[in-house]
Amino acid sequence: MTTYSLPQPYLLFMGDATEAGFAKTALGLKDWAPERCVGEWTLPGGTVSTGLPMLSPRQARAEGARAMLVGVAAVGGAIMPHWIPALIEALEAGLDLVSGMHTRMADTPALAEAAARCGRRLYDVRTPPPDIPIGKGKRRTGRRLLTVGTDCALGKKYTALALANALKSRGIPADFRATGQTGIMIAGAGIPIDAVVSDFVAGAAEALSPAADPAHWDVVEGQGSLFHPSFAAVSLGLLHGSQPDVIVLCHEAGRTTMLGLPDYPVPSLREAIDLHLALARRVNPAVKVAAVSLNTSQLGEDAALAAIKAVRDELGLPCADPLRHPDAFASVVDACLAAVR
Amino acid sequence: MTTYSLPQPYLLFMGDATEAGFAKTALGLKDWAPERCVGEWTLPGGTVSTGLPMLSPRQARAEGARAMLVGVAAVGGAIMPHWIPALIEALEAGLDLVSGMHTRMADTPALAEAAARCGRRLYDVRTPPPDIPIGKGKRRTGRRLLTVGTDCALGKKYTALALANALKSRGIPADFRATGQTGIMIAGAGIPIDAVVSDFVAGAAEALSPAADPAHWDVVEGQGSLFHPSFAAVSLGLLHGSQPDVIVLCHEAGRTTMLGLPDYPVPSLREAIDLHLALARRVNPAVKVAAVSLNTSQLGEDAALAAIKAVRDELGLPCADPLRHPDAFASVVDACLAAVR
Repeated sequence: MTTYSLPQPYLLFMGDATEAGFAKTALGLKDWAPERCVGEWTLPGGTVSTGLPMLSPRQARAEGARAMLVGVAAVGGAIMPHWIPALIEALEAGLDLVSGMHTRMADTPALAEAAARCGRRLYDVRTPPPDIPIGKGKRRTGRRLLTVGTDCALGKKYTALALANALKSRGIPADFRATGQTGIMIAGAGIPIDAVVSDFVAGAAEALSPAADPAHWDVVEGQGSLFHPSFAAVSLGLLHGSQPDVIVLCHEAGRTTMLGLPDYPVPSLREAIDLHLALARRVNPAVKVAAVSLNTSQLGEDAALAAIKAVRDELGLPCADPLRHPDAFASVVDACLAAVR
Repeated sequence: MTTYSLPQPYLLFMGDATEAGFAKTALGLKDWAPERCVGEWTLPGGTVSTGLPMLSPRQARAEGARAMLVGVAAVGGAIMPHWIPALIEALEAGLDLVSGMHTRMADTPALAEAAARCGRRLYDVRTPPPDIPIGKGKRRTGRRLLTVGTDCALGKKYTALALANALKSRGIPADFRATGQTGIMIAGAGIPIDAVVSDFVAGAAEALSPAADPAHWDVVEGQGSLFHPSFAAVSLGLLHGSQPDVIVLCHEAGRTTMLGLPDYPVPSLREAIDLHLALARRVNPAVKVAAVSLNTSQLGEDAALAAIKAVRDELGLPCADPLRHPDAFASVVDACLAAVR
């Protein structure tokens, strides 16, 4: 499995993003690895911010940054042409570049040329390891937990990180298993599952969460959504391959349509639970949906509490927002542990 | 979209296959493009045959063959090391090589070297076209039909070819849309969907069956199975991207466990219909499962007729075996047309 040793700390490149869903890499780094980020750099027109100080590449270099990390994504994972001058400016300021985009920086001649000229390196962390096996569907020892979502970009990675940290803080052996570029940048290891050839997605998820000690938990970062018509293939391969004992369903309160697809409604939580169980039982008949992780970031405090209570009442499952109410999130952790007893 | 112009006719390389499921490329070529095949070549230990004459590469060259086509697959799509001397023998006999394996012949030094030495070409038809877009889930004009299966390698391609031919013979504009190496070898065009990076599978299926005249039918070759824990990701991306109006469910009478996975039972037809509809309705609420295409190749005639009748009685849907009873297959074609009226 490919591992990375990335130059840190980072300057976070925000591009000209105007929707937080497209800046989840930068926002994730800020939340989960703030000690590795010195600031952010936004192009004219950009409105999404991590709250870190705005620094030019030259200022960031002076503050100790060693790389600029592309913290923003375009649909399809392409490098936007109008980002390239900014990326070259960073190389010229003495920063390496780190990217999880589908399009490899190394395959972009202007960037490859500028990196060579400046003596800097391009780290494309979305390159899957070679020789991923075909999935076998064999039951493995150890516990597996998968975070899944009603949509993309609403908290599956945050929830998995919070769960892995909570398990470890209770003395339970656990690993966060990263499946996306941000998770890999945070964890320093993982497989960029949506960059894996489709025939091998389940096999990659199996390799990412191998047989382990029966008491050990792999907390696997979910990707996409079974309900997202662009990316459901990724989600199903990951669901089958990670063979979860426990699923935690992630949802954003108030989101009504799928990211990037205004014609597609977000499914109900009940619908999402039923479909995930129907598909996951194929590989693990004992699978359970233990709890709901609710992203209430668009709500005020009273509305957030009401939304959480509404989910609990409707489904009879624990529900909490791991970022807003970290203490209450213990109920979700408890439910995951209870689900395998 | 990548198209191919392959050297023909072929000698079919059967390797040492002992299970027909692993020789479906050769068997498909023999059935659907017999005029393009001069014979087969089997290694010691191999027991699967197309019924074509056994010819060495040198004999096949003398019979007019221009290429040897790798008609057999190993799990994972690898080139088995013990096949390589045979492939080199073909190059030395004056044949090009055509392969749909995941592992590219061009990336295998011994083959690349031998091809260069002999002045021959290596055609790796499982290389997807560049710049496949992300799926958008937008409704498109024209009719789309997808063949799906309770398992891999049981007749989805055959059924799609039979349906496309039948529609055309009725004067209805139709195209067979190939998604696998054999289909591409037969059709001369298509996208090898299981070689597409998982994030782009739905987009590839959309590109393969673009908006068309409202009366036109795209008959899309299914891949894998939603129930196969190794390959379900491919199947779901193809289901979402091809946005079928009509699904024809393919099944093999008497098959009890999934190909290569003896611990996994083949699902019931009812279960398969329900899951496909639940997932396909996300992109096309009007989707219908119109009929069942039953592969009865393991049964005698009386048992085959009984199996077909049992499916009809159980589901109330037309059912036929397109290879065994081509005339009766008209009822399946009728049902597909009726489903969109």
